[in-house]
Amino acid sequence: MDFDLALSIDVLARTPGALKALLGGLAEPWVRGREGPDTFSAFDVVGHLIDGEETDWIPRARIILAKGEDPRFEPFDRFRHRARNAGRSLASLLDEFERLRGANLTLLRSWRLSEADLDLPGTHPTIGRVTLRELLATWTVHDLEHIAQIARVMAKQYGDQVGPWVPLLPILTDHLVPRSS
Amino acid sequence: MDFDLALSIDVLARTPGALKALLGGLAEPWVRGREGPDTFSAFDVVGHLIDGEETDWIPRARIILAKGEDPRFEPFDRFRHRARNAGRSLASLLDEFERLRGANLTLLRSWRLSEADLDLPGTHPTIGRVTLRELLATWTVHDLEHIAQIARVMAKQYGDQVGPWVPLLPILTDHLVPRSS
Repeated sequence: MDFDLALSIDVLARTPGALKALLGGLAEPWVRGREGPDTFSAFDVVGHLIDGEETDWIPRARIILAKGEDPRFEPFDRFRHRARNAGRSLASLLDEFERLRGANLTLLRSWRLSEADLDLPGTHPTIGRVTLRELLATWTVHDLEHIAQIARVMAKQYGDQVGPWVPLLPILTDHLVPRSS
Repeated sequence: MDFDLALSIDVLARTPGALKALLGGLAEPWVRGREGPDTFSAFDVVGHLIDGEETDWIPRARIILAKGEDPRFEPFDRFRHRARNAGRSLASLLDEFERLRGANLTLLRSWRLSEADLDLPGTHPTIGRVTLRELLATWTVHDLEHIAQIARVMAKQYGDQVGPWVPLLPILTDHLVPRSS
């Protein structure tokens, strides 16, 4: 598939509803279970996605669109959500994510980006030169990466319960080393 | 987590709504894209889940609960959905899956399974002896496996668009060999 802004928004707009359908009202053992130390539970992933709305995708797009001399992004803090969301409920995070994502997509649409805008460069702190087009494609893939992560981390909570089915369920063994994505 | 029937149903009941939120009305390139030959698109996964409702989980549970001399399961056809759903719309498959899953969970609840029931054995055609408890845990993990698969297969449709971000998005490279799960 080629990059297409409308196709990207088609996915980005669905994520809050998909997470609400998957996680809203779900029992705590599914929501809070992790793969290992310094990895994300489903609750943590929603917090991480909120961090993305507030500090990653749109702020970086703004840096690119400002066309300054040094369009360098701020580093992203993968663990900002931990302190920010201590004591919060999952329901409130799901609502907050939906609100932030909705506002960010309204803003994104309002920019009416041209092909020339999408070619504009920014500088990522570790991977270097990127374009606005690549940033927006990454935002889309990043949503899907974390939906898959939530499903994987939840599946692993039941890893000992499936007995001899383990070899037929690769989601349980694909990532034996715990990770935060 | 230990096996718990209510916790299993808590996940199983959410899958149809999660798939509708993720895929309902989504543009065709996302819905029909695959990872490679003989692998599943998002459309195919919904068909595969329908096959599970009709020919796998509940039929196998019935075989176990019948306590016959040889509680052997019928082999499962991973590609039954191909011919069955040719020409169908995704919307109609999502509705059908929701209806079948709802009816199957109503039936499952109506059985009021005891711990002794959950210990009953069946014989899987390739992995051998399993219990009803393991079958129901596997049904749950299987849903999550295929939600993760849908997200991964969709993400890969944009794999060439993220530019230098590829190393930071492991979902794009975790499974370089295409597969159908």
